[in-house]
Amino acid sequence: MKRLYLQEVATRDGFQNEKSFIDTEQKIALIDALSQCGYAKIEVTSFTSPKAIPALRDAEAVMAGIQRQSGVEYTVLVPNVRGAERALGCGIDEANLVMSVSEPHNRSNLRMTREQSFAQLREVVGVIGRGPVAVNVSLSTVFGCPMQGDVPVDEVLAWVGRFAELGVRGVTLCDTTGMAYPTQVETLSRQVRERFPELQLTLHFHNTRGMALANTLGALQAGIERFDASLGGLGGCPYAPGASGNVCMEDLVHMLDLMGYDTGLHLDRVLAASARLPGLIGHATPSQILKAGKRLDLHPIPAHVHSLSQQVAHHD
Amino acid sequence: MKRLYLQEVATRDGFQNEKSFIDTEQKIALIDALSQCGYAKIEVTSFTSPKAIPALRDAEAVMAGIQRQSGVEYTVLVPNVRGAERALGCGIDEANLVMSVSEPHNRSNLRMTREQSFAQLREVVGVIGRGPVAVNVSLSTVFGCPMQGDVPVDEVLAWVGRFAELGVRGVTLCDTTGMAYPTQVETLSRQVRERFPELQLTLHFHNTRGMALANTLGALQAGIERFDASLGGLGGCPYAPGASGNVCMEDLVHMLDLMGYDTGLHLDRVLAASARLPGLIGHATPSQILKAGKRLDLHPIPAHVHSLSQQVAHHD
Repeated sequence: MKRLYLQEVATRDGFQNEKSFIDTEQKIALIDALSQCGYAKIEVTSFTSPKAIPALRDAEAVMAGIQRQSGVEYTVLVPNVRGAERALGCGIDEANLVMSVSEPHNRSNLRMTREQSFAQLREVVGVIGRGPVAVNVSLSTVFGCPMQGDVPVDEVLAWVGRFAELGVRGVTLCDTTGMAYPTQVETLSRQVRERFPELQLTLHFHNTRGMALANTLGALQAGIERFDASLGGLGGCPYAPGASGNVCMEDLVHMLDLMGYDTGLHLDRVLAASARLPGLIGHATPSQILKAGKRLDLHPIPAHVHSLSQQVAHHD
Repeated sequence: MKRLYLQEVATRDGFQNEKSFIDTEQKIALIDALSQCGYAKIEVTSFTSPKAIPALRDAEAVMAGIQRQSGVEYTVLVPNVRGAERALGCGIDEANLVMSVSEPHNRSNLRMTREQSFAQLREVVGVIGRGPVAVNVSLSTVFGCPMQGDVPVDEVLAWVGRFAELGVRGVTLCDTTGMAYPTQVETLSRQVRERFPELQLTLHFHNTRGMALANTLGALQAGIERFDASLGGLGGCPYAPGASGNVCMEDLVHMLDLMGYDTGLHLDRVLAASARLPGLIGHATPSQILKAGKRLDLHPIPAHVHSLSQQVAHHD
C-alpha cells in the first residue's frame, strides 16, 4: 500500500470565505476532532490582518486553544513579516506562504505585483529562518489563470525555482479556479518533481469543473504523494458562483481508500467531522459521500420487491 | 487524436425521472438540437408501458417527429416483445435492453428475477432478429449493487457471455449507483474486452460519489472508446437523494477535449442544448461547465486591480 499524505485546509481556506463568523470555541472543537482523523497536516488559520479577513481574526486564540496531536503538522497562512511574527509566537509547525504565478491574479487576489509579493515573502522566509518552523509556498493559478488563461510552464518552473533557492521546504501547486486537467497535471507534476526533487510537493485541486478527482489520478501517475483537500468541499470559487471550489476531503479519501492507497485517515471520523459543518456554517456543503454514503453503505431490500409487482423503473 | 464515441442518454434516462411531463414538441426540438452536436448515438426514448413510465408515453410521436441526422444512431429502451414491436414500427437503429446483474437490484428495478429478465430479453432479441436493427444490452450494477454490495466479477462476465451468445452487438457496463472506482473500472473493462473482443463495449458512469470522471480515466486506460453520459447530468440516483446521478455530458466532453481526444462533439452546441434544460424541466441541473464556463472562458481583469488597494483575499 503506497502511503499518501493528506492535508486539511477547511478551517483556513474554507472558513475564510464564510459570511458569518464561526465561534472560536467551535473552530477549536472542530480542529481537535480533525486532529484525531490521521491527517499529515492541518492548515489551522491565517495570520492575515483581521481587517482583511475578519472570519479568521481569532487566529491566536485558535492556535492557543487547540490540543495538538503528535504526528500532525499544524500550518497557518502567513502573508507578511507581521503575520510571521504573530504566527511564530503561537508555536506553528509550518508557515504557508501564498502568491500567484499569474500577474493579473496576484494583483486581484493579493493587491500586489508578483515581484512585490516575492519580496515580501522572501522577508518572511528570512524572519522564519532555518529553525524548527518549516516554510511552504502555495503557488496559485499554476494550471491556468481565470483572467490571463494559460501560464507558461517555464514561468511556473521559474517561480518554484526562486522559492527553492530561498530554501523553503515545500511548494504547493494550486489549481485555484479548477482549470487543471489530468494530462496537464501529470506533465507539470513530473517536471516539477524532476527539477526540484528535494522539495516537498503538494497538489491542491479545485472541483470547479468536476475534474478534481480525475486530476488526482494524473498527479498519482506522476508520483505525487501529498494532497490538500477541504472537509465537505468547503471553500468556494470566486469566479464561478454556485460552482464547487476546493476538492472535498471525504470524496478524495473515499476514492483513494478504494484504490488501495494508505492515506493514514480514518474516513468515518472525517465524515463525522464533515457532518458537523452545516451546523457551524449555516448551509449545506458539496460533499458527495455525506449525501450518498460510502460505496458499501448498503440499503435494505424493499419489502415490496419480493412480490414482483408490475411497477418498473429502468434505472441503468 | 484517438477517436471516442459519446452517447447521449438525457432524453430517456434523464427525462424518465422528471416529475412533470415534457411536451412532445419540446422533446423533439431538443433531440433535433442534439442531432447537430456530433453524438455517435442518442437514446431517444423508451418503449415501456405508458403506465409504468408516463413521462415517456409519447415514444412513437417523438420518434416520428425527430429529424434524423446521418452518422447518428437513434437508440431506444426496449423492455419486452411488445416494446420491441412498437419500436421496430418506428424505424429505430438500435434497441437498448436493460437488466441488472444483481438479483435484488433486478427485482427492485424491474420486478423480475434475473432469469425472468433474461428470458424476456432473449425473446426481444429473437423478434429483432439479425436484421438492420442492432441490439445493445445495458447491464446494471456491474460495479456494485446498493443492496447486495459487490457483484462477483465471474457473475458479471457470465451475464455478458450469455448476451454475447445471443448475438447482441453491444453491452454497456453500468455503474448504476456510483459504486465504481477507477482501478476496478480499469480491471473489469480489460477483462470484458479481452474475453469479448467482438462486442461494442460502452461504459456508463454515475457521479453519485464524485468519481465519474476519474472512472472515465480508468476506462480509457483499458482502451474503452464508448461512453454514455447525460446532458446537464440529468437523471438522479434513487438511492441517494440530492446526490448526482448520470455523469454530465458537457463536463465529460470538456475534460476529454482538453486531454486531446477526438469526441466528435461540438462542445458549444452541447452547452447550448444543456442551457435549455432548466426551462424544460423546471429546475437547475448539476452541470459544472454550465456554471463555471469552459476552462479558457476568461474573466476581465477588474478595474480596481490596477490601483493595488489593501483588500486581500488569499484564494489559493
